[in-house]
Amino acid sequence: MAVIAVDCGGTNLIFGRGDSPAGIEVAGVVPTPREAAAIPGAVAAAVRPLVDGSVTAMGVGCAGLVDHATGNLVWSPHSRGGRVALGTEVARATGLPVVVDGDANLAALAEAHMGAGAGHRVVLLVALGTGIGGGLVVEGRVERGRAFLGEIGHMVMDPAGPLCACGRHGCWEALVSGTSLARAARRVAEGDPAGAVARAAAGATPRGDHLSAAAREGDAAATAALADAGEWLGRGLANLVAVLDPDVIVVGGAAAGAGEALLGPARATLSATVAGAGYRAPTPVVVARFGSRAGLVGAAMAAEEARW
Amino acid sequence: MAVIAVDCGGTNLIFGRGDSPAGIEVAGVVPTPREAAAIPGAVAAAVRPLVDGSVTAMGVGCAGLVDHATGNLVWSPHSRGGRVALGTEVARATGLPVVVDGDANLAALAEAHMGAGAGHRVVLLVALGTGIGGGLVVEGRVERGRAFLGEIGHMVMDPAGPLCACGRHGCWEALVSGTSLARAARRVAEGDPAGAVARAAAGATPRGDHLSAAAREGDAAATAALADAGEWLGRGLANLVAVLDPDVIVVGGAAAGAGEALLGPARATLSATVAGAGYRAPTPVVVARFGSRAGLVGAAMAAEEARW
Repeated sequence: MAVIAVDCGGTNLIFGRGDSPAGIEVAGVVPTPREAAAIPGAVAAAVRPLVDGSVTAMGVGCAGLVDHATGNLVWSPHSRGGRVALGTEVARATGLPVVVDGDANLAALAEAHMGAGAGHRVVLLVALGTGIGGGLVVEGRVERGRAFLGEIGHMVMDPAGPLCACGRHGCWEALVSGTSLARAARRVAEGDPAGAVARAAAGATPRGDHLSAAAREGDAAATAALADAGEWLGRGLANLVAVLDPDVIVVGGAAAGAGEALLGPARATLSATVAGAGYRAPTPVVVARFGSRAGLVGAAMAAEEARW
Repeated sequence: MAVIAVDCGGTNLIFGRGDSPAGIEVAGVVPTPREAAAIPGAVAAAVRPLVDGSVTAMGVGCAGLVDHATGNLVWSPHSRGGRVALGTEVARATGLPVVVDGDANLAALAEAHMGAGAGHRVVLLVALGTGIGGGLVVEGRVERGRAFLGEIGHMVMDPAGPLCACGRHGCWEALVSGTSLARAARRVAEGDPAGAVARAAAGATPRGDHLSAAAREGDAAATAALADAGEWLGRGLANLVAVLDPDVIVVGGAAAGAGEALLGPARATLSATVAGAGYRAPTPVVVARFGSRAGLVGAAMAAEEARW
C-alpha cells in the first residue's frame, strides 16, 4: 500500500511516493506550468511513472485559492487563468482517488501532527516560497474559514510598497518571499560582482539560497539583506499574531532555508512591534521540521484520509 | 433570575441588567477610567444599584488584551497600565460570579447566535468603536487562539500612516475608527464652519455621529469623509478576508451607526481589492443586529453560561 503526494507551488511542482506520510520520498521536481489550465496535465504526467497497483490514493497541494470541497484550483497569482477542475482531471487521468487542498494547508497539517507544531492547539504555518502561503490547524483539523483561509501573503502592509504578482502594491509577499529574496540577491551581487553572493551564484542568476550561503560565510551585505527581509517577515508575523494569536508559528517553504539570518530579525521585530508588546508572552516562531518537504508529507496524509 | 452585563470600551463603560440576553436593558453609561487599575472599581460602582437577590451572575466585556481564562485585563491601548485582575476584583466587590472576556468576543457571540451572523459557521465581528476590536465565532464558540485572537485594529496597514493610540503608525484603527471619524468631523467642521457637520454639532466638538447626520442630509464634504474612511475600512476587511475568509463579517460598535455612507464604500473596496477578486464570491458585510448593544447582549450570554 502506497500513496502519491504532489506539492504544486508557485515555481516548482514536487512529487513523491511513500508507504507512509513521514516516509514520503521526493521522486522528482518539474516547473509549475505558467497556465493554470496546464497544471492538471503536468501533475498527471509527473506522477504517471509512480502509479502501480499498490498505490491507493493521491494528495495534491496547490498554491493559490484552492477549493478543498470541489478539488478546484480557483485562482493563482503565479499562473495565468483560474477555475481549473484540478482534482477531477487528475483523478480521471490517473484512475486514483485524489484529494486537493491548499499547499500551505497540507504543510500545516503535517507540521501540526508530526512536526514542529505538534502538541500545540492552534498552529499557523507560514510557507515562504515563491509567495507566502498560510495554513491554520486548530485541534488537529485544517480550518479553512469559508473556503480560502490563509491567503496571508496578500495582506497589504504598505500601499506604497513594491508591486505584487497579484497586481496590487505592498502585499506581504511582495515585501518578503522567495521572490523578494532572489531580487535582493541580484541587487547584492550587482553591487559587488566579486562578493560572496556573486561567488555563491557562480555565474548563475543569484537566488535567495546564494544570499543565505553568503550570509553563513559572514558576508555583511548578504546578512543585511536577510535582516531587512526578516524585519518585514516579523512585521507580517506581528499582524498575524494580532489577528490570530496562534500558539506557535511554523515557518516552512524553501526560503525558510535562510535560517536564523532571516528568522532572528523576524523574531526580534515580532517581539518589539506586536500589539501589547511587553504584556504578552512571546509567540514561538520555529522552522518546519519537514522543511520544504512539509507540503508533500501533508499531501500524503490527505491521501491517506481519502483511503479511509 | 437576572444577569448583569457590562461593556467596557475604549471611551464608555455601558452597563445593564435583564432576565435574558436579548432582553438586556441599558441602565447607564459612565466614562471608562483612563487608568486600567481603576476599571474594576468603576465597574463595581456602576453595577452596585443593579445587584439584588435575583441577580445570579455578571458578564464583563472589556477592550484590549483580555485573558478569558484568568479574567485579567492584560493590556489596553486606551487606558494606562495593564495586568489588572478585573474578574477577581469585580467578583470580590459584588459577591457575584463574574465572567470576563474581550468586548468584541462577546459582541461576536451575540451576533453569531442571535444576530446578523446567525446561521453562518464562521462569523467575524468587527467592532468599530474608539478603536477596532475583532471577535471570531466558529461553530458557535468564541475562538481565542492562544488567548488574544482578534486584535484586528492593530494590523499595521501603512507604515507611513497616522499615529495610533498604541504608539505605532498606520494601525488599521488609526486609519478608520470612531476616533478617526471624530477627527474627520472636526476637520470638515473647521473647513466649513457654517456647514452641515458644524450645524449638527451645534457648538459641541464635532463627532463621528455629526458626520453621519450631515451625510444623511446630503452634505458632500461629510459624504466624502465617510467614503474615505469606508475605503480604509474596506482595505482592512480585504486583509481579513485574505487571512481568515469568514462566512460573514458583522460590523458593530458605535461607528457602525454611520451606515451605508461608510459601509457602501467599504464593500466596494473589499470586492475590488481582495486577493483573488473576481474569482471568489463576495463576503457579506452586514450591520450588527444589536448595534452598539451587541457587547452587552454577549456579556449577558457569558453570564448565563457562568450560571450553568
